[in-house]
Amino acid sequence: MSSPITPAELLAALEWRYATKRFDPTRRIPEEIWSVLERTLVLTPSSYGMQPWEFVVVTRQDLKESLVPHSWGQRQVADCSHLLVIASRQTLGEEDVDRLMRAIESIQGRTLEQTKGYREMILKDVIKGPRSQDVPGWARLQGYIALGNFMTVAALLGIDTCPMEGFLASRYDEALGLAERGLSASVVCPAGYRHPDDANASLPKVRFPLEALVRHVV
Amino acid sequence: MSSPITPAELLAALEWRYATKRFDPTRRIPEEIWSVLERTLVLTPSSYGMQPWEFVVVTRQDLKESLVPHSWGQRQVADCSHLLVIASRQTLGEEDVDRLMRAIESIQGRTLEQTKGYREMILKDVIKGPRSQDVPGWARLQGYIALGNFMTVAALLGIDTCPMEGFLASRYDEALGLAERGLSASVVCPAGYRHPDDANASLPKVRFPLEALVRHVV
Repeated sequence: MSSPITPAELLAALEWRYATKRFDPTRRIPEEIWSVLERTLVLTPSSYGMQPWEFVVVTRQDLKESLVPHSWGQRQVADCSHLLVIASRQTLGEEDVDRLMRAIESIQGRTLEQTKGYREMILKDVIKGPRSQDVPGWARLQGYIALGNFMTVAALLGIDTCPMEGFLASRYDEALGLAERGLSASVVCPAGYRHPDDANASLPKVRFPLEALVRHVV
Repeated sequence: MSSPITPAELLAALEWRYATKRFDPTRRIPEEIWSVLERTLVLTPSSYGMQPWEFVVVTRQDLKESLVPHSWGQRQVADCSHLLVIASRQTLGEEDVDRLMRAIESIQGRTLEQTKGYREMILKDVIKGPRSQDVPGWARLQGYIALGNFMTVAALLGIDTCPMEGFLASRYDEALGLAERGLSASVVCPAGYRHPDDANASLPKVRFPLEALVRHVV
């Protein structure tokens, strides 16, 4: 594949991104851009391709406002254009693996007979093996891949985001009807446009030196 | 920011990406491209900006080969150009928060006095509060943001990747000298170029329907 973007443009977008402290409440992400972000989320890779998630999108103003008290009072939740809640599966069963196998069959034409070994492998790990010890934790990890993918693509489209772990999952689960569907809110990411007065936008990014974070084993 | 890339180009890159089953062992990622990927990793956002990670890069062939048996026999580890191991901090202390505060001071000019409240907030959560209950788990989550960011940017640069949870962390920690430095291998991501004969490259991506994964709460 020839690269559709230069390294310099890529890095500029990653530098432009920051944890938006204050969103412009008057600006809305156009539908055609938001739909790209939804497709981005769906295209996120996950372990075994299990996709143990649901992406919840909240745009209703009163609902966003009602979530502020459950979000350590952070106004981004209400002032953003689209509030993304990445919810993770709390349990997984054989039927979920079978659902994936049927998707493989219908999309790739590989029969259930052909994917039997793959099915076994997932069962032995995620359903009955090591990862089954902590399905919520494992599913949550996958959701963070989606978060990383989402924020990067958003930045490339000129959309601001603010990843947030500071919220009460149980209150979100209740407000968004997640618990009853076997899901829990893992991480929250308001998206929209920075307010022109957000002073954080112009602060240089704080990172430890590359030499301290990247190590070449030679 | 005006977008440096069209939505269609972005989605095409995400569609082009796949979990590479077979890398071309003769091809190496040029240094100038790899260095962009390293900067991408460093620019990854993390909770509180704590960056509780180290990015380990392995290119030495015999070392990569020696990791194959600890990676469920998966040849990608040896055949890739650059093997990325995302390692997570296993413990965090007050000194780590102070290190961040000093970085903020030197980069943004905000004094320790000005960031006192922020310091307290992190201490109360990550060092002495709720997240301190499971620092390795919390640090690992942050590493998965980096993984998502990395794979997306790699795809945009025409670099293939294969995220892997199927490896023995304790063996990686030993081989890469991670344990003694308070780190553990969280997730592994070989990067390089797909082999022309990798049949997986041409398989359509298996995803559940968007309508099943994205829910608009109205």
